[in-house]
Amino acid sequence: MNLHEEMIQMGDRAVAAARALARLSARRKNSILQAMADELDARRAAIKAANEKDMEAGRQAGLSAPLLDRLLLTDARIEGMIRGLRAIVGLKDPVGGKISRWIRPNGLVIQKVRVPIGVIAIIYEARPNVTADAASLCIKTSNAVILRGGKEAMQSNIAIAEAMMAGGRKKGLPEHVIQVVATTDRDAVRELVQMEGRVDLAIPRGGEGLIRTVAEQARVPVIKHYKGVCHVYVDESADAEMALKIVENAKCQRPGVCNAIEKVLVHEKIAPAFLPRMAELLRARGVELRGDIAARMIVSDMKEAVEEDWHAEYLDLVLAVRVIPDTAAAVEHINRYGSHHSDSIVAASEAAQKQFTDEVDSATVYVNASTRFTDGGEFGMGAEIGISTDKLHARGPMGLEELTTYKYVILGSGQIRE
Amino acid sequence: MNLHEEMIQMGDRAVAAARALARLSARRKNSILQAMADELDARRAAIKAANEKDMEAGRQAGLSAPLLDRLLLTDARIEGMIRGLRAIVGLKDPVGGKISRWIRPNGLVIQKVRVPIGVIAIIYEARPNVTADAASLCIKTSNAVILRGGKEAMQSNIAIAEAMMAGGRKKGLPEHVIQVVATTDRDAVRELVQMEGRVDLAIPRGGEGLIRTVAEQARVPVIKHYKGVCHVYVDESADAEMALKIVENAKCQRPGVCNAIEKVLVHEKIAPAFLPRMAELLRARGVELRGDIAARMIVSDMKEAVEEDWHAEYLDLVLAVRVIPDTAAAVEHINRYGSHHSDSIVAASEAAQKQFTDEVDSATVYVNASTRFTDGGEFGMGAEIGISTDKLHARGPMGLEELTTYKYVILGSGQIRE
Repeated sequence: MNLHEEMIQMGDRAVAAARALARLSARRKNSILQAMADELDARRAAIKAANEKDMEAGRQAGLSAPLLDRLLLTDARIEGMIRGLRAIVGLKDPVGGKISRWIRPNGLVIQKVRVPIGVIAIIYEARPNVTADAASLCIKTSNAVILRGGKEAMQSNIAIAEAMMAGGRKKGLPEHVIQVVATTDRDAVRELVQMEGRVDLAIPRGGEGLIRTVAEQARVPVIKHYKGVCHVYVDESADAEMALKIVENAKCQRPGVCNAIEKVLVHEKIAPAFLPRMAELLRARGVELRGDIAARMIVSDMKEAVEEDWHAEYLDLVLAVRVIPDTAAAVEHINRYGSHHSDSIVAASEAAQKQFTDEVDSATVYVNASTRFTDGGEFGMGAEIGISTDKLHARGPMGLEELTTYKYVILGSGQIRE
Repeated sequence: MNLHEEMIQMGDRAVAAARALARLSARRKNSILQAMADELDARRAAIKAANEKDMEAGRQAGLSAPLLDRLLLTDARIEGMIRGLRAIVGLKDPVGGKISRWIRPNGLVIQKVRVPIGVIAIIYEARPNVTADAASLCIKTSNAVILRGGKEAMQSNIAIAEAMMAGGRKKGLPEHVIQVVATTDRDAVRELVQMEGRVDLAIPRGGEGLIRTVAEQARVPVIKHYKGVCHVYVDESADAEMALKIVENAKCQRPGVCNAIEKVLVHEKIAPAFLPRMAELLRARGVELRGDIAARMIVSDMKEAVEEDWHAEYLDLVLAVRVIPDTAAAVEHINRYGSHHSDSIVAASEAAQKQFTDEVDSATVYVNASTRFTDGGEFGMGAEIGISTDKLHARGPMGLEELTTYKYVILGSGQIRE
């Protein structure tokens, strides 16, 4: 069997698995997820042994220290996967829920019902914990999953998936609900995302390069989780104390994540009073500031911000600062340079708030709050498979509901169309 | 400027137009749509003259009679476009509506708000009325639109779009909200559907070949409207009179449309009594029947149905008939051969109804009703841009709501993440 045939077979199996999975009750799925968590717990040693093979191969291949760190499965990380699985058991199953229902004049009852998407392909990089996280969210929502992790994590991913399948089987999990693409052939990704009719959705999770490759090759729908170039705009009407707290939190609390800010835009009327205080506060936190000319006229020892700074996702203690004349200019800057992820206005003026929330074209737009809240957990979704920067189907944090679609179930009593 | 640069410019203009359009109130948009309808009315002669150029070129090029018919703009068809526009004025504007709203323990108010998608590309074939229908639905939902019609209809499409823009301008329609790709270069479609960041959604409307080409070339999200291979399954528990009425309606009322049925599956217990009556009824309506071996044992003078019949969308007075042992086999057949569009069960048994509606993986699943109701108008949506056979974002009839997406607008009072 060549690669193409192998992938088609995998797709066919996933379609059949999805249909079988869709017949299981919420209760049955929860007992399967519990059994998976138990089996991961029982197989810690085997999972760590598989991970050690990946680590050894990674060291031989000269992987960088941060990459090796992402690859490593410690007891705490395995514990994290197990806890994650158990937390998903406790969440409400969205499948089968009625989104809406109405009755037509001819008596037809139209019901819009939440159903699984079907087969979801997850394409990801070094972190093996994605295997457990993604698979469990898919199973909770009755979707079959095909996992294509990084080749560096192959042994770990297989060990985790096998533990989950073995645990699940004890409670009646259909075969092939979780499948791992076990070849290192790079064409497997292309095959996977071109299987229309077998794969219903591809979610790439990883760096921009991976996401672009998937988006370019795909014929199936893709939901992208691009970078976060997030902004705080400090309006002239802002409470300066609040703005300082929000900027500090959004930049410093965890700078390496996609909902941390990379830019601050400051209204020219408040800039002379605000910027020196902000600079002092952030420098004490170790943040490097890069300013446009107006910002540097106020805080003279900032580095100069150049055009590429406005596009940059630093994921580090670096912040670019720009002074702008009004809310319209802030909106314009954010829509032009941002990544449509999370942006916040600090303002007392309701007119400025309204203009900002109406016109900023981002998944999540905040008034007087830190951008760091863009997260499935913080939204109350319980778990997330990622944060979509796309506009179709799902935008912002993707929880369980976003892993479902709908169909219309229409009840009649013999209606025909005249 | 080469084609690529031209298309990029068109995309940039569309993005700017979408932003300007998003600032208009529902009332303003309605007055624009009214003015467009008036201007179409005022320019009937010019539109017919432009259409006559297309018709003449079509005749010269030897277009088939059905194609020339689709191309032709009669007074009645122009009237239809005008009426369509005025009907859209009367519909509720979904933009700005709150889909949901909840408050987190930290006091953050999370609002999920309906917003325009942005820039929509419509790629279609011969019918020039799509120009008016698609553009007006997009404007109602504050989306800029780039129209790429068939080259056969170019003059007609330009005349219609120009009339609409001229009418709209009188009421403050921003420039470039409607743009027509006026080159006949076939690469324009590829350029259009690869403009990530400028085009948010592509909707191909036309034959399977067009849709496949767009799906293969696209890097932007595509919502496909594939063919309708629709089924009626007559369960053993069916009311035979009802089943006859539904089959007749679903096949004969308008055989050339995507929600007409192409197959009937009949439970083996009811087949001996049902099939002869069905055959008699349908033959009187001029329907050619093609049966599997079991069906032909009951109605001996049917043509033989071969494998490709189960996949076929006849769009004509032809019907393939198969006898099956139970509901599970009906589900299996429909999921395998159908196009996930519209399928109906006729049954009194609630168990059979439930199995069918739970397990048939189609956009619209009916109990005891004709499949012909899959239609935006029949659903009460007022208008539709098409019927999605995809699963993501929109499934089944796409009305105004399906031409929107959402963003989260989050109101705080200084919240930061701990």
